[in-house]
Amino acid sequence: MEHRQHEHKSISERWIDITNPSQTELDELSSKYKLHPNAVQDCLKPDHLPKYEEIEQSKFIVSRIYDINQSSDADTIQEVSRKVSIFITHDIIITIHRTEQPILSEIRHQYIDSLRCTDVNQLLMIILNKVLLSYETPALKLNDEIDFYENKIFLKNKLPSLLKNLYRIKRKVSVNRRILTLTKDIINKLEIENHKNVMYRELQDTYVQQETIYDQLNDDINNVLQLYLSISSQKTNEVIRVLTIFSVFFMPLTFIVGIYGMNFHFMPELEWKFGYLFSILIMIAVTLIIYFWFKRKDWL
Amino acid sequence: MEHRQHEHKSISERWIDITNPSQTELDELSSKYKLHPNAVQDCLKPDHLPKYEEIEQSKFIVSRIYDINQSSDADTIQEVSRKVSIFITHDIIITIHRTEQPILSEIRHQYIDSLRCTDVNQLLMIILNKVLLSYETPALKLNDEIDFYENKIFLKNKLPSLLKNLYRIKRKVSVNRRILTLTKDIINKLEIENHKNVMYRELQDTYVQQETIYDQLNDDINNVLQLYLSISSQKTNEVIRVLTIFSVFFMPLTFIVGIYGMNFHFMPELEWKFGYLFSILIMIAVTLIIYFWFKRKDWL
Amino acid sequence: MEHRQHEHKSISERWIDITNPSQTELDELSSKYKLHPNAVQDCLKPDHLPKYEEIEQSKFIVSRIYDINQSSDADTIQEVSRKVSIFITHDIIITIHRTEQPILSEIRHQYIDSLRCTDVNQLLMIILNKVLLSYETPALKLNDEIDFYENKIFLKNKLPSLLKNLYRIKRKVSVNRRILTLTKDIINKLEIENHKNVMYRELQDTYVQQETIYDQLNDDINNVLQLYLSISSQKTNEVIRVLTIFSVFFMPLTFIVGIYGMNFHFMPELEWKFGYLFSILIMIAVTLIIYFWFKRKDWL
Amino acid sequence: MEHRQHEHKSISERWIDITNPSQTELDELSSKYKLHPNAVQDCLKPDHLPKYEEIEQSKFIVSRIYDINQSSDADTIQEVSRKVSIFITHDIIITIHRTEQPILSEIRHQYIDSLRCTDVNQLLMIILNKVLLSYETPALKLNDEIDFYENKIFLKNKLPSLLKNLYRIKRKVSVNRRILTLTKDIINKLEIENHKNVMYRELQDTYVQQETIYDQLNDDINNVLQLYLSISSQKTNEVIRVLTIFSVFFMPLTFIVGIYGMNFHFMPELEWKFGYLFSILIMIAVTLIIYFWFKRKDWL
Amino acid sequence: MEHRQHEHKSISERWIDITNPSQTELDELSSKYKLHPNAVQDCLKPDHLPKYEEIEQSKFIVSRIYDINQSSDADTIQEVSRKVSIFITHDIIITIHRTEQPILSEIRHQYIDSLRCTDVNQLLMIILNKVLLSYETPALKLNDEIDFYENKIFLKNKLPSLLKNLYRIKRKVSVNRRILTLTKDIINKLEIENHKNVMYRELQDTYVQQETIYDQLNDDINNVLQLYLSISSQKTNEVIRVLTIFSVFFMPLTFIVGIYGMNFHFMPELEWKFGYLFSILIMIAVTLIIYFWFKRKDWL
Repeated sequence: MEHRQHEHKSISERWIDITNPSQTELDELSSKYKLHPNAVQDCLKPDHLPKYEEIEQSKFIVSRIYDINQSSDADTIQEVSRKVSIFITHDIIITIHRTEQPILSEIRHQYIDSLRCTDVNQLLMIILNKVLLSYETPALKLNDEIDFYENKIFLKNKLPSLLKNLYRIKRKVSVNRRILTLTKDIINKLEIENHKNVMYRELQDTYVQQETIYDQLNDDINNVLQLYLSISSQKTNEVIRVLTIFSVFFMPLTFIVGIYGMNFHFMPELEWKFGYLFSILIMIAVTLIIYFWFKRKDWL
Repeated sequence: MEHRQHEHKSISERWIDITNPSQTELDELSSKYKLHPNAVQDCLKPDHLPKYEEIEQSKFIVSRIYDINQSSDADTIQEVSRKVSIFITHDIIITIHRTEQPILSEIRHQYIDSLRCTDVNQLLMIILNKVLLSYETPALKLNDEIDFYENKIFLKNKLPSLLKNLYRIKRKVSVNRRILTLTKDIINKLEIENHKNVMYRELQDTYVQQETIYDQLNDDINNVLQLYLSISSQKTNEVIRVLTIFSVFFMPLTFIVGIYGMNFHFMPELEWKFGYLFSILIMIAVTLIIYFWFKRKDWL
Repeated sequence: MEHRQHEHKSISERWIDITNPSQTELDELSSKYKLHPNAVQDCLKPDHLPKYEEIEQSKFIVSRIYDINQSSDADTIQEVSRKVSIFITHDIIITIHRTEQPILSEIRHQYIDSLRCTDVNQLLMIILNKVLLSYETPALKLNDEIDFYENKIFLKNKLPSLLKNLYRIKRKVSVNRRILTLTKDIINKLEIENHKNVMYRELQDTYVQQETIYDQLNDDINNVLQLYLSISSQKTNEVIRVLTIFSVFFMPLTFIVGIYGMNFHFMPELEWKFGYLFSILIMIAVTLIIYFWFKRKDWL
Repeated sequence: MEHRQHEHKSISERWIDITNPSQTELDELSSKYKLHPNAVQDCLKPDHLPKYEEIEQSKFIVSRIYDINQSSDADTIQEVSRKVSIFITHDIIITIHRTEQPILSEIRHQYIDSLRCTDVNQLLMIILNKVLLSYETPALKLNDEIDFYENKIFLKNKLPSLLKNLYRIKRKVSVNRRILTLTKDIINKLEIENHKNVMYRELQDTYVQQETIYDQLNDDINNVLQLYLSISSQKTNEVIRVLTIFSVFFMPLTFIVGIYGMNFHFMPELEWKFGYLFSILIMIAVTLIIYFWFKRKDWL
Repeated sequence: MEHRQHEHKSISERWIDITNPSQTELDELSSKYKLHPNAVQDCLKPDHLPKYEEIEQSKFIVSRIYDINQSSDADTIQEVSRKVSIFITHDIIITIHRTEQPILSEIRHQYIDSLRCTDVNQLLMIILNKVLLSYETPALKLNDEIDFYENKIFLKNKLPSLLKNLYRIKRKVSVNRRILTLTKDIINKLEIENHKNVMYRELQDTYVQQETIYDQLNDDINNVLQLYLSISSQKTNEVIRVLTIFSVFFMPLTFIVGIYGMNFHFMPELEWKFGYLFSILIMIAVTLIIYFWFKRKDWL
């Protein structure tokens, strides 16, 4: 029997890890291990979201690992992460991915070669755990970036335009968070079979930890955005206030010069010898009155 | 005995699925299966909210399935979803709906014909589960729309008027969310009888998942709306700031030309040969002073 | 023995329902069933908040039922709801209220006459459950009102003044919510004796459901209020922006006409044949320059 | 033996309640009941925060009771509440406070004299419960104050300056809430020994209830503050809008009179017989155009 | 055997506390107790975040104690706290830190010398508990600072610029909070082995308490920041409102003097004897009309 035969194999033989397979290899796999052909064909497409499916007796999991080689403006799930497809059938675990994933060779070295993991289910937990942990380092980096911009917003006197930078961070936080949320469903579906497994508990702990970190990041970036907009609006308002004060000084002056610009035939002041001087003195007086009024009101 | 008789029937015979029944058909149903006539008559009305009722020994459930053929401006529970009435009595399950529901034939194919489901209660869970899952695809679409507008809000220099578009999304999220909330009561009422049922657990999982997704969407759309209003207000403020600066340049100039427009008989400058030139030089000087003052204040 | 004697009575006889009792009736009640006189006297006062008290061996509960005949501007707990006092002593339940409460006769019909309820404690749960459910219909109505105003806020170009209308809704939500919160204490105090009672579980479910609905309403009305204020402020800002742009066109024009209003004896332009035309051309040129500058800045 | 001896005493003798003790009395107490001298000396100082300490075999609790005689501008923990120190040692309970606390004599009357409480631990729960309940009445009063100001904010056309009044409420809510939070630690520390005690459950219930009330108050006052600021800003903006509209009418008029104030030698209009009338007609026309433009834009 | 041998040692001998070790000392330690050399080398670096690691049979914990001697502008995890590395192996506990930590000698005095702690695991709990408690005093200080600024924001008529001060507090709260969050992972990882340990429960209680305090502080500082920005913006708006009112008085006056500054040959008023007086009376009238209009509108 196929099934019993595998049990005699070591865990190392029962884990089949395939990088960038050709169409033919996939066909062979699918027929050899009786996998659903559609599910296998899907492995080549880069754009699947994390999901868990049971087709007959085999399980099909799509997980997405954080891609450390992403371009700096990556901001979709597909650009930010790499798909790792996992099949589990008859005590065999198959992992398929398009590019080399250092995390998987690390797992082979750390757990398989050292015989610390001897069970296909346990291996699945370890892989998923490492996949989740791949989001930890970018979280720290995002946190530092948020701190950097927060510092700028509060301490710079002239606020630069940070809207696009903050959006980029918000976007990255939100994409990573969405991948985590979608991964939650996989973890939940695994619970029934594995809830007594110590490795499963660790997987759950890691999930909750990552979720907390990204919820925090999400709160932080929204908070910083809001503060940026509020402080920027405060600074603009402040400028408008100063300019309005400036204008107010000229309103009565322009009015006074307007008066003596009137063409009435009978305006006594116009004929005074010191009429001009008189008008200038009035204007100086008005300016001083306004100045002291503003001073008293604490507007200057 | 009526009851025992049904038990010998296969599950396929015990599920009666009726599309757009006539008044007569409903009357027959009601008398044949001893259903409360009022409840049966209600099946034809399109505007009921999800609910669970126990009338004597039969259960009456109104569920609402997401309507993929809705018009683009649908924004009430009735426009957005289609009613599926479910009666359960004496081991018979009756589903009544006005239009063909592909989900139900899918269930018949996937679970009934393949004998994967053999129990009326289990079938009920499966139907409700699929009803809830019908809200998953629109959630993804709404998410993409929110991302699209968020991108516009942050990256476009000139902010278009998005209030109506964002409202439409907010409204759709809120209507779907309300349907889900009302469906929760059905799921809770089913708990006592079914809490050990695996299918019930899956139904609950699906509910929690959908609830999380829509809570998230609700947060997101409110967040985007708030950001839209804040950023739009920031941009307007910015324009006002620039315009105010612009005006400030003209306040003192207008004042100066006002001075030399006064009609005093004795104004020495007026008679100077280069009085005009002199006044223009003063104005240029004032403009430059203001310019450098603003530069130093970082307002330009 | 008093106590045993009651047990032989039917539940219908053990429920004493009194509408608008006279002082004398209350005195008789109090002496007949050994109730604390002060508690009984309190029944006539309309302004008590929901509470639970144990005095010696009898329980005294004040519950408040939603008053469907309230005036449209009712906004205090007393105006919005009617008091129903409940005494439980020696297997006797006494309900006292000032006006006829249809809910109570409904309960008598549905549960007592049909013998579906045979126990005083169970009856108490049923009454409290119906009291809580009386807040469900007003919640739906409040929800519709919020939707109505939300629609107005987003889709009307000219925002009417909605502050008072929104306040009225906010107030109603908040009063209903406060009654529910106060009722929670009654439900908690009943837990020890009744936590195994199915009816108690339903009462708790109803409470949680109503609480969720009103929490949601509270969030919604606050959200709508905030949006109203933000959108209204955005519209005002927009008007100010347009007006500021309008003013900016006149600043330089007024300056130019000011120049040629100066009275210098030697101003060559004044004597030119086409000086007037020349000045008008300059002004047209300035207007066009500003116009295209604004166009390029996307401010028009 | 000291310890056994006390057990023979009645609970009334085992509760030692001391009001405003002298230094000597405290010294005697400390030596008689082997209390830590420092802890006893602390009783005279009014400014301790709620805390729980175990020193050797005795417990030392500092609780703070709401002070109904506080001055109206009290806003620190010390001004708002009175310290009650509680020592428990060898089945003896000692309560020390500087002023008469009616709550304690009430407890003696209600629980001790009536023999409803016979145990030192139970008595401790009762005292702490009453201490917590002393915060209930001020909560109701604060709630009414918040409602009062909320009403003013929404319904008054001219918004008075309420910042200081709202701050006073915010401050009181926050101080009471802080006392409750600090008291939580006492309740938690008592859990291990008392979690089966009915009185302890009631104490916990009271705590959760008070916490909910004050959390709600905190949300409410912050919400009202935010609304006050938003509505006040909306009203100011509205005024600025009207004033800006007002100014816009004068911009073109001042420009026109400026034109005919120019001193060009050749300005045909100036010599027209009806030039003055003509200019006035132009100004009326301009005013009307602006008026209808604003009307059409719904700005008036 | 190494392991058994230690069991005979007293707890005092089994705790090795090392301050500022040299490279050689570390090498010796690492070889004597078979610790992973890399982990030991890490002890000298000041910038590690709290973490828990199991390497073979020994545990390696990095904890960070609040540094009371920090500079006043410290705002990174490294500046705000001091690393204490803890190794646990074969019933030996080793604590390594670069500066003298009074907390550790206190623990030795209070728990080890008095024999209140006899177990390495228990000692670990005590140390971690005290590490967490070191964040309590700074929390109280931060709370007072927030209260101080809140008071200023609400009660000062002229709002000083507090942005930098509030940022400093926000930053300190956020750094302390981050240390706590990272420490949570250590506490979680210790749960499996220690969940029955009383000391572990106390450690958990302390963690939850500190977390609550810092969450509260975080809410408070964000709330105060938001209020500061809102109130500051309200005050600026108010100034702009008054200035706009001021300008509005001069708009029509300047227009009127403009009229009589026109040079039309036929302007009857100009030749009137009391034309000048007449124009001044008109201006006074206009000013009064505006004044009473504003009064009636409640804008003055």
